[in-house]
Amino acid sequence: MPEQIFSYGQLFDFSKTIFRKTGCSEVDADIAAKALLAADLRGIDSHGVARLSGYIRLCEAKRVNDSPSIKIIHETASTAVVDGDSGLGLVVAPFAMKVAIEKANQVGTGWVSVQNSNHFGIAAHHAMMALEHEMIGIAMTNASAFVAPTFSIERMLGTNPICVVIPAGNEPPFVADFSTTTAANGKLEILQRKNQKAPVGWLQDKDGNNSTDPDELKNGGALLPLGRDKEHGSHKGYALGAIVDIFSGILSGANYGPWVPPFPAYAKMPEEQPGKGIGHFLGAMRIDAFRPAEDFKEHMDKWISRFRSAKTIKGQEKVLIPGDIEREMEIERKKTGIPLHERVVEDLKILGKKYDVKLLL
Amino acid sequence: MPEQIFSYGQLFDFSKTIFRKTGCSEVDADIAAKALLAADLRGIDSHGVARLSGYIRLCEAKRVNDSPSIKIIHETASTAVVDGDSGLGLVVAPFAMKVAIEKANQVGTGWVSVQNSNHFGIAAHHAMMALEHEMIGIAMTNASAFVAPTFSIERMLGTNPICVVIPAGNEPPFVADFSTTTAANGKLEILQRKNQKAPVGWLQDKDGNNSTDPDELKNGGALLPLGRDKEHGSHKGYALGAIVDIFSGILSGANYGPWVPPFPAYAKMPEEQPGKGIGHFLGAMRIDAFRPAEDFKEHMDKWISRFRSAKTIKGQEKVLIPGDIEREMEIERKKTGIPLHERVVEDLKILGKKYDVKLLL
Repeated sequence: MPEQIFSYGQLFDFSKTIFRKTGCSEVDADIAAKALLAADLRGIDSHGVARLSGYIRLCEAKRVNDSPSIKIIHETASTAVVDGDSGLGLVVAPFAMKVAIEKANQVGTGWVSVQNSNHFGIAAHHAMMALEHEMIGIAMTNASAFVAPTFSIERMLGTNPICVVIPAGNEPPFVADFSTTTAANGKLEILQRKNQKAPVGWLQDKDGNNSTDPDELKNGGALLPLGRDKEHGSHKGYALGAIVDIFSGILSGANYGPWVPPFPAYAKMPEEQPGKGIGHFLGAMRIDAFRPAEDFKEHMDKWISRFRSAKTIKGQEKVLIPGDIEREMEIERKKTGIPLHERVVEDLKILGKKYDVKLLL
Repeated sequence: MPEQIFSYGQLFDFSKTIFRKTGCSEVDADIAAKALLAADLRGIDSHGVARLSGYIRLCEAKRVNDSPSIKIIHETASTAVVDGDSGLGLVVAPFAMKVAIEKANQVGTGWVSVQNSNHFGIAAHHAMMALEHEMIGIAMTNASAFVAPTFSIERMLGTNPICVVIPAGNEPPFVADFSTTTAANGKLEILQRKNQKAPVGWLQDKDGNNSTDPDELKNGGALLPLGRDKEHGSHKGYALGAIVDIFSGILSGANYGPWVPPFPAYAKMPEEQPGKGIGHFLGAMRIDAFRPAEDFKEHMDKWISRFRSAKTIKGQEKVLIPGDIEREMEIERKKTGIPLHERVVEDLKILGKKYDVKLLL
């Protein structure tokens, strides 16, 4: 794949400057660029700078408010609803996660449902804010509908990711961040670029038949819930996606199901939307609200090392702990840089030209 | 399948009397029988009276304490750890769920991790306690290890179910209760009775190859995480099972992973257990801690009716809402009775004889 390598600093400065030029404050541009680049560092290339121009188009179309007044509109000791004022999800979600952490500091746990937001990048970036406070972090979001429930041909749910981050002691933290589908959209984009077929079980066509065409979504097809078909538990993946949708969309007063706003600025908005923007759900649980943090971490270390040393199937190198791949990628890319596909580089150059920002600062 | 039909009352009275005779108090026997029979009513036949003799054998072996002193050993405003004192999970889990509900009443949400417990029956029975308080209910538990993580041949996790219950308005509540594997143990038991093969994707043999033998667990095989293989997201099912294990086992001080005690009383205990008994995790979130309950319920009704009317794949009757099948089964069985397989009836008769309780009271 034709690629060009950039340092973290180059891409961070570029993204931050672009966010500044579209109207974000210095602080917000910094927060947004950090959230965006976290995806590139962790190897989730579909959610990083490859999406910068998409976010900027949302700002240009005034679907994203570049100077939002994000605020708590309802709260109890352990809960809050945050109104994102149509701001970038990259900025709204860290605000909400901070609220969750503050509440956990006070009463043991904090739970924040967010309305009137936009796509928030990778869930792990927000959930991982809990780690420096010795807390478990949770982040989820709904998203525009590409997933058909079991037995359906209609696209009713987003890929609705769930992230749960758990601190350990000497071992690195447990970081599970996954879409509630067999495969996320980003994996289709990779196949599209490579002109390769998708495995059976990722997609169905508009009539509900198996499809291996990674472009099937353009023909009215749908992604499949985790489990793939009823016989293999797709009703469980559908239920998980639904739970994310309800916690993010209905608890908060955001949109939900087929009414969630699409990411592309040119895409038509669903009609008669029942709520405001996209919804998120963020949570923080203080470890010592359950048991002494030192005890917990000792057992997490034991859990992690026992699972990592589990006997493997012949030919497999080792059993992975959720977060292993992304953490190793981050170490690697901080050292050697972030490779971008030539199409992404081209896209960023156009963006840079438009806003008078050189890609290589 | 040769079956015999019993009324709810017959099976409830029988189970309660048996629990009384093994030493449970009047109150505990009532709570345990209700939890057990909830499974039969909802059609989860593997977790109902079919397991009564298994629970009783645990009492006889003194692995279950029939007169537990269940107590809170640590708490904050929104959290608690409960020590089940080796009691029946059927009794310990409702105690813990009550604590979660009381905390949610005070500060918006309540979260309880439980140590030193035993198998708790179906998760939905406990989570559904939240409904009468206009709360979202959550219940999960770890269980003895039958599931191999992605890439592994070792059985490291239980089928670790997750249940999330969400109240609605005019529509019935959303009740998702599912194991984090492609198929739960109970489904294998049904195939074993019928002498049928399992679908590819439910099981692997001791070397990690696909197996369709529903008795494969007896030969060192393992159940597969939801997703079935890496290509279809089994690392997500593995992560979900792991999260349940850590929330239930490590937050509380119970056992976890391969150290969780087995259900059969005759099975050997894992060596060098790091905690006490089995762990659960229960949660309650007050709806009006986020938004007015009436608004929430109106939108839940809209969500449910929109999903229920989603276009179906040709040949499929309708799109289901999580909990539909079990609710309809409950209505049906309350009217027409609960069918028991002849082997289960035989088992109950032996139990009745031993404790001098007639099955048909």
